[in-house]
Amino acid sequence: MPDEIFLKEGERFDDLERNGYRIIQNPEKFCFGMDAVLLSGFAAVKEGECVIDLGTGTGIIPILLKAKTKGRHFTGLEIQQESADMARRSVAVNGLSADIDIVDGDIREASAMFGASVFDVVTTNPPYMSNQHGLVNPKLPKAIARHEILCTLEDVVREGARLLKPGGRFYMVHRPGRLAEIIRILEKYRLEPKRMKFVHPFVDKEPNMVLFECSRGGKPQVRVEAPLVVFEKPGVYTREITEIYGY
Amino acid sequence: MPDEIFLKEGERFDDLERNGYRIIQNPEKFCFGMDAVLLSGFAAVKEGECVIDLGTGTGIIPILLKAKTKGRHFTGLEIQQESADMARRSVAVNGLSADIDIVDGDIREASAMFGASVFDVVTTNPPYMSNQHGLVNPKLPKAIARHEILCTLEDVVREGARLLKPGGRFYMVHRPGRLAEIIRILEKYRLEPKRMKFVHPFVDKEPNMVLFECSRGGKPQVRVEAPLVVFEKPGVYTREITEIYGY
Repeated sequence: MPDEIFLKEGERFDDLERNGYRIIQNPEKFCFGMDAVLLSGFAAVKEGECVIDLGTGTGIIPILLKAKTKGRHFTGLEIQQESADMARRSVAVNGLSADIDIVDGDIREASAMFGASVFDVVTTNPPYMSNQHGLVNPKLPKAIARHEILCTLEDVVREGARLLKPGGRFYMVHRPGRLAEIIRILEKYRLEPKRMKFVHPFVDKEPNMVLFECSRGGKPQVRVEAPLVVFEKPGVYTREITEIYGY
Repeated sequence: MPDEIFLKEGERFDDLERNGYRIIQNPEKFCFGMDAVLLSGFAAVKEGECVIDLGTGTGIIPILLKAKTKGRHFTGLEIQQESADMARRSVAVNGLSADIDIVDGDIREASAMFGASVFDVVTTNPPYMSNQHGLVNPKLPKAIARHEILCTLEDVVREGARLLKPGGRFYMVHRPGRLAEIIRILEKYRLEPKRMKFVHPFVDKEPNMVLFECSRGGKPQVRVEAPLVVFEKPGVYTREITEIYGY
Protein backbone atom coordinates (compact mmCIF):
# COMPACT_ATOMS: atom_id res chain seq x y z
CA MET A 1 0.00 0.00 0.00
CA PRO A 2 1.68 3.27 -1.06
CA ASP A 3 2.07 5.99 1.56
CA GLU A 4 0.24 8.40 -0.71
CA ILE A 5 -2.98 6.89 0.61
CA PHE A 6 -2.34 9.06 3.68
CA LEU A 7 -2.44 12.28 1.66
CA LYS A 8 -5.44 14.44 0.76
CA GLU A 9 -5.58 16.97 -2.03
CA GLY A 10 -3.01 19.76 -1.76
CA GLU A 11 -1.02 17.92 0.90
CA ARG A 12 2.54 16.66 0.76
CA PHE A 13 5.07 14.80 2.89
CA ASP A 14 7.98 16.74 4.36
CA ASP A 15 11.01 14.91 5.69
CA LEU A 16 11.88 15.75 9.32
CA GLU A 17 15.50 14.48 9.12
CA ARG A 18 14.92 12.54 12.36
CA ASN A 19 14.41 8.76 12.54
CA GLY A 20 13.06 8.88 8.98
CA TYR A 21 9.94 10.63 10.26
CA ARG A 22 7.79 12.63 7.88
CA ILE A 23 5.03 15.15 8.39
CA ILE A 24 1.97 15.87 6.29
CA GLN A 25 1.48 19.55 5.44
CA ASN A 26 -0.65 21.62 3.14
CA PRO A 27 1.34 24.66 2.05
CA GLU A 28 -1.83 26.54 1.22
CA LYS A 29 -3.12 26.18 4.77
CA PHE A 30 -0.36 26.32 7.37
CA CYS A 31 3.15 24.87 7.53
CA PHE A 32 5.21 24.65 10.69
CA GLY A 33 7.87 27.29 11.17
CA MET A 34 11.31 27.47 12.68
CA ASP A 35 9.63 28.38 15.98
CA ALA A 36 8.31 24.86 16.50
CA VAL A 37 11.62 23.26 15.56
CA LEU A 38 13.58 25.50 17.95
CA LEU A 39 11.11 24.84 20.75
CA SER A 40 11.54 21.09 20.26
CA GLY A 41 15.31 21.60 20.55
CA PHE A 42 14.97 23.77 23.66
CA ALA A 43 12.46 21.62 25.57
CA ALA A 44 14.19 19.14 27.88
CA VAL A 45 11.91 16.09 28.12
CA LYS A 46 13.31 13.43 30.45
CA GLU A 47 12.99 9.67 30.24
CA GLY A 48 9.51 8.47 31.14
CA GLU A 49 7.85 11.89 31.17
CA CYS A 50 4.42 12.66 29.76
CA VAL A 51 4.03 15.71 27.57
CA ILE A 52 1.13 17.73 26.18
CA ASP A 53 1.47 20.23 23.34
CA LEU A 54 -1.21 22.94 23.41
CA GLY A 55 -2.28 23.95 19.91
CA THR A 56 -0.26 21.30 18.15
CA GLY A 57 -1.28 22.17 14.57
CA THR A 58 0.02 19.42 12.29
CA GLY A 59 1.68 17.69 15.25
CA ILE A 60 5.22 18.86 14.55
CA ILE A 61 6.24 19.31 18.20
CA PRO A 62 5.11 15.92 19.56
CA ILE A 63 6.61 14.13 16.55
CA LEU A 64 9.97 15.91 16.91
CA LEU A 65 9.99 15.39 20.70
CA LYS A 66 9.26 11.69 20.19
CA ALA A 67 12.27 11.56 17.84
CA LYS A 68 14.62 13.54 20.08
CA THR A 69 13.74 12.48 23.64
CA LYS A 70 12.91 9.45 25.76
CA GLY A 71 9.56 10.85 26.88
CA ARG A 72 6.99 8.15 27.61
CA HIS A 73 3.92 9.61 25.94
CA PHE A 74 2.97 12.70 23.96
CA THR A 75 -0.43 14.36 23.51
CA GLY A 76 -1.22 17.04 20.95
CA LEU A 77 -4.33 19.18 21.47
CA GLU A 78 -5.71 21.01 18.44
CA ILE A 79 -8.93 22.92 17.86
CA GLN A 80 -8.74 23.01 14.05
CA GLN A 81 -10.08 19.64 12.90
CA GLU A 82 -8.33 19.76 9.55
CA SER A 83 -4.93 20.23 11.21
CA ALA A 84 -5.67 17.59 13.83
CA ASP A 85 -6.64 15.18 11.06
CA MET A 86 -3.34 15.79 9.25
CA ALA A 87 -1.45 15.36 12.51
CA ARG A 88 -3.20 12.06 13.20
CA ARG A 89 -2.29 10.76 9.74
CA SER A 90 1.34 11.88 10.22
CA VAL A 91 1.44 9.96 13.51
CA ALA A 92 0.07 6.89 11.76
CA VAL A 93 2.40 7.00 8.77
CA ASN A 94 5.38 7.19 11.15
CA GLY A 95 4.07 4.23 13.17
CA LEU A 96 3.71 6.32 16.33
CA SER A 97 0.07 5.73 17.23
CA ALA A 98 1.05 4.11 20.54
CA ASP A 99 3.27 7.07 21.49
CA ILE A 100 1.34 10.12 20.36
CA ASP A 101 -2.34 10.99 20.77
CA ILE A 102 -3.79 13.80 18.74
CA VAL A 103 -6.91 15.13 20.47
CA ASP A 104 -9.51 17.50 19.03
CA GLY A 105 -10.30 20.22 21.49
CA ASP A 106 -10.15 23.74 22.81
CA ILE A 107 -7.11 24.92 24.79
CA ARG A 108 -9.44 26.93 27.02
CA GLU A 109 -10.96 23.66 28.26
CA ALA A 110 -7.76 21.60 28.38
CA SER A 111 -7.63 21.12 32.16
CA ALA A 112 -11.30 20.21 32.21
CA MET A 113 -10.65 17.60 29.51
CA PHE A 114 -7.47 16.05 30.89
CA GLY A 115 -7.66 16.90 34.60
CA ALA A 116 -5.31 18.93 36.82
CA SER A 117 -1.68 18.08 37.64
CA VAL A 118 -1.38 15.21 35.17
CA PHE A 119 1.52 16.15 32.84
CA ASP A 120 5.25 16.48 33.50
CA VAL A 121 5.78 18.85 30.60
CA VAL A 122 3.65 21.32 28.63
CA THR A 123 4.87 22.72 25.31
CA THR A 124 3.22 25.42 23.27
CA ASN A 125 3.81 27.56 20.20
CA PRO A 126 0.71 29.73 20.62
CA PRO A 127 -0.65 32.51 18.41
CA TYR A 128 1.69 35.47 18.82
CA MET A 129 -0.48 38.37 17.84
CA SER A 130 -3.01 39.91 20.18
CA ASN A 131 -4.03 42.54 17.70
CA GLN A 132 -6.76 41.32 15.36
CA HIS A 133 -7.47 44.63 13.68
CA GLY A 134 -7.53 44.46 9.93
CA LEU A 135 -7.68 40.69 9.69
CA VAL A 136 -9.30 39.96 6.34
CA ASN A 137 -10.65 36.59 7.34
CA PRO A 138 -10.37 35.47 10.96
CA LYS A 139 -11.67 32.01 10.05
CA LEU A 140 -8.65 31.09 7.93
CA PRO A 141 -6.37 28.41 9.44
CA LYS A 142 -3.31 30.67 9.19
CA ALA A 143 -5.09 33.50 10.98
CA ILE A 144 -6.19 31.17 13.79
CA ALA A 145 -2.65 29.86 14.22
CA ARG A 146 -1.12 33.33 14.30
CA HIS A 147 -3.66 35.58 16.02
CA GLU A 148 -5.35 35.27 19.39
CA ILE A 149 -8.73 34.55 17.86
CA LEU A 150 -9.71 31.30 19.59
CA CYS A 151 -7.49 31.64 22.66
CA THR A 152 -5.37 34.31 24.38
CA LEU A 153 -1.90 34.05 25.88
CA GLU A 154 -3.55 34.03 29.30
CA ASP A 155 -5.76 31.05 28.34
CA VAL A 156 -2.68 29.08 27.26
CA VAL A 157 -0.69 29.90 30.39
CA ARG A 158 -3.61 29.25 32.75
CA GLU A 159 -4.43 25.86 31.24
CA GLY A 160 -0.75 24.92 31.00
CA ALA A 161 -0.26 25.66 34.68
CA ARG A 162 -3.32 23.62 35.65
CA LEU A 163 -2.27 20.63 33.55
CA LEU A 164 1.23 20.48 35.09
CA LYS A 165 2.22 18.48 38.13
CA PRO A 166 3.91 20.60 40.86
CA GLY A 167 7.47 21.23 39.66
CA GLY A 168 6.42 20.37 36.10
CA ARG A 169 7.90 22.37 33.23
CA PHE A 170 6.23 24.73 30.76
CA TYR A 171 8.00 25.42 27.46
CA MET A 172 6.83 28.22 25.21
CA VAL A 173 8.12 30.14 22.19
CA HIS A 174 6.83 33.69 21.72
CA ARG A 175 7.72 37.17 20.52
CA PRO A 176 10.21 39.30 22.50
CA GLY A 177 7.95 42.34 22.16
CA ARG A 178 5.50 40.75 24.59
CA LEU A 179 8.18 39.79 27.12
CA ALA A 180 7.01 41.93 30.03
CA GLU A 181 3.37 40.93 29.53
CA ILE A 182 4.36 37.24 29.27
CA ILE A 183 6.32 37.33 32.53
CA ARG A 184 3.43 38.99 34.34
CA ILE A 185 0.93 36.39 33.10
CA LEU A 186 3.32 33.53 33.95
CA GLU A 187 3.60 34.90 37.50
CA LYS A 188 -0.17 35.13 37.83
CA TYR A 189 -0.33 31.35 37.33
CA ARG A 190 2.81 30.57 39.37
CA LEU A 191 4.92 29.52 36.39
CA GLU A 192 8.40 30.82 37.24
CA PRO A 193 10.82 31.42 34.33
CA LYS A 194 13.96 29.34 34.89
CA ARG A 195 15.62 29.46 31.45
CA MET A 196 15.20 31.91 28.58
CA LYS A 197 16.85 32.06 25.18
CA PHE A 198 16.52 34.81 22.60
CA VAL A 199 16.67 33.89 18.91
CA HIS A 200 18.35 36.46 16.64
CA PRO A 201 18.23 36.20 12.82
CA PHE A 202 21.78 37.60 12.77
CA VAL A 203 24.15 38.24 15.67
CA ASP A 204 23.79 42.02 15.32
CA LYS A 205 20.00 42.03 14.94
CA GLU A 206 17.18 42.20 17.44
CA PRO A 207 15.71 38.85 18.50
CA ASN A 208 12.48 37.79 16.78
CA MET A 209 11.68 34.88 19.09
CA VAL A 210 12.18 34.02 22.74
CA LEU A 211 12.10 30.55 24.28
CA PHE A 212 10.94 30.01 27.88
CA GLU A 213 11.35 27.17 30.34
CA CYS A 214 9.22 27.74 33.44
CA SER A 215 8.77 25.67 36.54
CA ARG A 216 5.38 25.34 38.21
CA GLY A 217 5.97 26.87 41.64
CA GLY A 218 9.74 27.42 41.19
CA LYS A 219 11.90 30.06 42.88
CA PRO A 220 12.58 33.36 41.08
CA GLN A 221 16.02 32.96 39.49
CA VAL A 222 16.28 32.73 35.71
CA ARG A 223 19.17 31.73 33.46
CA VAL A 224 19.21 33.76 30.28
CA GLU A 225 21.25 31.68 27.87
CA ALA A 226 23.69 32.64 25.13
CA PRO A 227 21.84 34.04 22.12
CA LEU A 228 20.71 31.57 19.47
CA VAL A 229 21.77 33.04 16.14
CA VAL A 230 20.05 31.68 13.03
CA PHE A 231 22.22 32.86 10.12
CA GLU A 232 25.98 33.08 9.92
CA LYS A 233 25.58 35.06 6.72
CA PRO A 234 22.59 35.51 4.40
CA GLY A 235 21.36 32.05 3.37
CA VAL A 236 23.82 30.13 5.56
CA TYR A 237 22.60 28.67 8.85
CA THR A 238 24.84 28.64 11.92
CA ARG A 239 26.06 25.28 13.18
CA GLU A 240 23.69 25.46 16.16
CA ILE A 241 20.70 25.71 13.83
CA THR A 242 21.81 22.86 11.56
CA GLU A 243 22.29 20.71 14.65
CA ILE A 244 18.78 21.44 15.90
CA TYR A 245 17.37 20.69 12.44
CA GLY A 246 19.46 17.51 12.22
CA TYR A 247 20.79 18.16 8.72
CA MET B 1 47.24 75.38 42.14
CA PRO B 2 47.96 71.74 41.28
CA ASP B 3 44.98 69.43 40.81
CA GLU B 4 46.39 67.09 43.42
CA ILE B 5 44.90 69.37 46.04
CA PHE B 6 41.60 67.60 45.15
CA LEU B 7 42.96 64.19 46.17
CA LYS B 8 42.92 62.55 49.60
CA GLU B 9 45.12 59.68 50.70
CA GLY B 10 44.77 56.51 48.62
CA GLU B 11 42.86 58.34 45.86
CA ARG B 12 43.82 58.85 42.23
CA PHE B 13 42.53 60.49 39.07
CA ASP B 14 41.22 58.27 36.28
CA ASP B 15 40.78 59.66 32.78
CA LEU B 16 37.24 59.25 31.37
CA GLU B 17 38.26 59.73 27.71
CA ARG B 18 35.41 62.24 27.30
CA ASN B 19 35.88 66.03 27.17
CA GLY B 20 39.09 65.62 29.18
CA TYR B 21 36.99 64.72 32.24
CA ARG B 22 38.57 62.83 35.10
CA ILE B 23 37.15 61.02 38.09
CA ILE B 24 38.54 60.58 41.58
CA GLN B 25 38.57 56.98 42.80
CA ASN B 26 40.07 55.03 45.65
CA PRO B 27 40.87 51.52 44.41
CA GLU B 28 40.80 50.18 47.95
CA LYS B 29 37.22 51.31 48.44
CA PHE B 30 35.16 51.04 45.26
CA CYS B 31 35.84 51.81 41.60
CA PHE B 32 33.15 52.14 38.97
CA GLY B 33 32.61 49.13 36.71
CA MET B 34 31.69 48.53 33.11
CA ASP B 35 28.03 48.47 34.24
CA ALA B 36 27.99 52.23 34.85
CA VAL B 37 29.74 52.99 31.57
CA LEU B 38 27.33 50.82 29.57
CA LEU B 39 24.33 52.38 31.31
CA SER B 40 25.62 55.85 30.39
CA GLY B 41 25.85 54.68 26.76
CA PHE B 42 22.37 53.13 26.82
CA ALA B 43 20.51 56.00 28.54
CA ALA B 44 19.04 58.43 26.02
CA VAL B 45 18.99 61.86 27.69
CA LYS B 46 17.47 64.53 25.46
CA GLU B 47 18.32 68.19 25.20
CA GLY B 48 17.11 70.17 28.21
CA GLU B 49 16.17 67.17 30.35
CA CYS B 50 16.82 66.87 34.07
CA VAL B 51 18.30 63.64 35.35
CA ILE B 52 18.79 62.03 38.75
CA ASP B 53 21.12 59.10 39.39
CA LEU B 54 20.09 56.99 42.39
CA GLY B 55 23.12 55.67 44.29
CA THR B 56 25.67 57.58 42.25
CA GLY B 57 28.79 56.36 44.08
CA THR B 58 31.72 58.41 42.84
CA GLY B 59 29.45 60.24 40.36
CA ILE B 60 30.51 58.32 37.27
CA ILE B 61 27.05 58.26 35.63
CA PRO B 62 26.19 61.98 35.93
CA ILE B 63 29.70 62.95 34.77
CA LEU B 64 29.55 60.64 31.73
CA LEU B 65 26.00 61.73 30.89
CA LYS B 66 27.06 65.38 31.10
CA ALA B 67 29.87 64.56 28.64
CA LYS B 68 27.71 62.54 26.23
CA THR B 69 24.33 64.30 26.21
CA LYS B 70 22.69 67.72 26.12
CA GLY B 71 20.81 67.19 29.36
CA ARG B 72 20.19 70.42 31.27
CA HIS B 73 21.02 69.31 34.81
CA PHE B 74 22.19 66.19 36.62
CA THR B 75 21.76 65.17 40.26
CA GLY B 76 23.59 62.31 41.94
CA LEU B 77 22.17 60.94 45.20
CA GLU B 78 24.53 58.95 47.41
CA ILE B 79 24.20 57.63 50.96
CA GLN B 80 27.89 56.90 51.53
CA GLN B 81 29.42 60.24 52.52
CA GLU B 82 32.93 59.28 51.50
CA SER B 83 31.80 58.43 47.96
CA ALA B 84 29.64 61.55 47.74
CA ASP B 85 32.62 63.64 48.85
CA MET B 86 34.80 62.11 46.12
CA ALA B 87 32.03 62.68 43.57
CA ARG B 88 31.72 66.33 44.60
CA ARG B 89 35.45 66.88 44.19
CA SER B 90 35.37 65.17 40.76
CA VAL B 91 32.56 67.51 39.72
CA ALA B 92 34.62 70.49 40.91
CA VAL B 93 37.87 69.44 39.25
CA ASN B 94 36.02 69.08 35.94
CA GLY B 95 34.42 72.50 36.34
CA LEU B 96 30.90 71.03 36.39
CA SER B 97 29.54 72.45 39.63
CA ALA B 98 26.81 74.35 37.79
CA ASP B 99 25.70 71.22 35.91
CA ILE B 100 25.89 68.44 38.49
CA ASP B 101 24.72 68.38 42.11
CA ILE B 102 25.91 65.59 44.36
CA VAL B 103 23.47 65.18 47.24
CA ASP B 104 23.99 63.16 50.42
CA GLY B 105 20.95 61.06 51.10
CA ASP B 106 19.04 57.81 51.29
CA ILE B 107 17.41 56.39 48.14
CA ARG B 108 14.48 55.26 50.28
CA GLU B 109 13.65 58.90 50.98
CA ALA B 110 14.44 60.31 47.55
CA SER B 111 10.91 61.33 46.59
CA ALA B 112 10.42 62.92 50.00
CA MET B 113 13.63 64.90 49.49
CA PHE B 114 13.11 66.02 45.89
CA GLY B 115 9.32 65.83 45.48
CA ALA B 116 7.20 63.74 43.11
CA SER B 117 7.16 64.01 39.28
CA VAL B 118 10.15 66.34 39.03
CA PHE B 119 12.69 64.52 36.83
CA ASP B 120 12.61 63.60 33.13
CA VAL B 121 15.06 60.74 33.56
CA VAL B 122 16.15 58.45 36.41
CA THR B 123 19.30 56.35 36.10
CA THR B 124 20.49 53.71 38.54
CA ASN B 125 23.14 51.04 38.91
CA PRO B 126 21.81 49.59 42.16
CA PRO B 127 23.22 46.82 44.36
CA TYR B 128 22.65 43.55 42.48
CA MET B 129 22.68 40.99 45.24
CA SER B 130 19.69 40.37 47.47
CA ASN B 131 21.48 37.63 49.37
CA GLN B 132 23.52 38.96 52.27
CA HIS B 133 24.44 35.60 53.79
CA GLY B 134 28.09 35.22 54.57
CA LEU B 135 28.97 38.88 54.16
CA VAL B 136 32.10 39.39 56.25
CA ASN B 137 31.50 43.07 56.83
CA PRO B 138 28.25 44.64 55.66
CA LYS B 139 29.55 48.10 56.57
CA LEU B 140 32.30 48.09 53.92
CA PRO B 141 31.72 50.49 50.99
CA LYS B 142 32.05 47.66 48.45
CA ALA B 143 29.47 45.54 50.28
CA ILE B 144 27.02 48.45 50.41
CA ALA B 145 27.43 49.11 46.69
CA ARG B 146 26.96 45.44 45.74
CA HIS B 147 24.45 44.03 48.22
CA GLU B 148 20.95 45.17 49.15
CA ILE B 149 22.02 46.29 52.60
CA LEU B 150 20.79 49.90 52.70
CA CYS B 151 18.12 49.62 49.99
CA THR B 152 16.31 46.91 48.04
CA LEU B 153 15.48 46.73 44.35
CA GLU B 154 11.91 47.61 45.27
CA ASP B 155 13.04 50.76 47.12
CA VAL B 156 14.97 51.91 44.04
CA VAL B 157 12.10 51.23 41.63
CA ARG B 158 9.46 52.78 43.88
CA GLU B 159 11.42 55.98 44.43
CA GLY B 160 12.46 56.15 40.78
CA ALA B 161 8.83 55.91 39.69
CA ARG B 162 7.77 58.63 42.14
CA LEU B 163 10.53 61.02 41.06
CA LEU B 164 9.65 60.73 37.36
CA LYS B 165 7.25 62.94 35.48
CA PRO B 166 4.49 61.00 33.64
CA GLY B 167 6.12 59.53 30.55
CA GLY B 168 9.56 60.00 32.13
CA ARG B 169 12.20 57.34 31.57
CA PHE B 170 13.86 54.99 34.03
CA TYR B 171 17.22 53.47 33.08
CA MET B 172 18.69 50.61 35.10
CA VAL B 173 21.44 48.04 34.75
CA HIS B 174 21.01 44.77 36.64
CA ARG B 175 21.67 41.03 36.60
CA PRO B 176 19.75 38.80 34.12
CA GLY B 177 19.15 36.23 36.86
CA ARG B 178 16.68 38.61 38.50
CA LEU B 179 14.87 39.42 35.25
CA ALA B 180 11.45 38.03 36.15
CA GLU B 181 11.52 39.62 39.61
CA ILE B 182 12.64 42.96 38.13
CA ILE B 183 9.79 43.01 35.61
CA ARG B 184 7.24 42.25 38.31
CA ILE B 185 8.52 45.06 40.55
CA LEU B 186 8.63 47.49 37.62
CA GLU B 187 4.99 46.66 36.88
CA LYS B 188 4.00 47.23 40.49
CA TYR B 189 5.19 50.85 40.16
CA ARG B 190 3.87 51.33 36.60
CA LEU B 191 7.30 51.46 34.95
CA GLU B 192 6.80 49.69 31.63
CA PRO B 193 9.90 48.17 29.96
CA LYS B 194 10.28 49.69 26.48
CA ARG B 195 13.87 48.72 25.57
CA MET B 196 16.10 45.97 26.91
CA LYS B 197 19.64 44.98 26.00
CA PHE B 198 21.56 41.97 27.27
CA VAL B 199 25.33 42.26 27.70
CA HIS B 200 27.31 39.09 26.93
CA PRO B 201 31.03 38.77 27.76
CA PHE B 202 31.41 36.73 24.55
CA VAL B 203 28.88 36.11 21.80
CA ASP B 204 28.45 32.45 22.79
CA LYS B 205 28.18 33.11 26.54
CA GLU B 206 25.24 33.87 28.83
CA PRO B 207 24.63 37.57 29.49
CA ASN B 208 25.95 38.93 32.80
CA MET B 209 24.13 42.28 32.66
CA VAL B 210 20.84 43.59 31.32
CA LEU B 211 20.00 47.21 30.54
CA PHE B 212 16.43 48.52 30.88
CA GLU B 213 14.65 51.57 29.55
CA CYS B 214 11.20 51.91 31.10
CA SER B 215 8.52 54.50 30.60
CA ARG B 216 6.42 55.72 33.50
CA GLY B 217 2.91 54.63 32.50
CA GLY B 218 3.85 53.33 29.04
CA LYS B 219 2.08 50.64 27.02
CA PRO B 220 3.30 47.03 27.23
CA GLN B 221 5.48 46.52 24.16
CA VAL B 222 9.22 46.09 24.61
CA ARG B 223 12.07 46.17 22.08
CA VAL B 224 14.77 43.68 22.99
CA GLU B 225 17.85 44.95 21.16
CA ALA B 226 20.72 43.13 19.50
CA PRO B 227 23.06 41.63 22.10
CA LEU B 228 25.90 43.83 23.32
CA VAL B 229 29.03 41.68 23.19
CA VAL B 230 32.01 42.84 25.25
CA PHE B 231 34.95 40.83 23.92
CA GLU B 232 35.72 39.87 20.35
CA LYS B 233 38.38 37.51 21.69
CA PRO B 234 40.04 37.30 25.11
CA GLY B 235 41.50 40.71 25.97
CA VAL B 236 40.13 42.44 22.85
CA TYR B 237 37.03 44.62 23.15
CA THR B 238 34.45 44.70 20.36
CA ARG B 239 34.06 47.92 18.40
CA GLU B 240 30.76 48.66 20.14
CA ILE B 241 32.48 48.63 23.53
CA THR B 242 35.40 50.80 22.46
CA GLU B 243 32.90 53.30 21.04
CA ILE B 244 30.98 53.44 24.32
CA TYR B 245 34.22 53.91 26.24
CA GLY B 246 35.39 56.52 23.74
CA TYR B 247 38.87 55.07 23.22
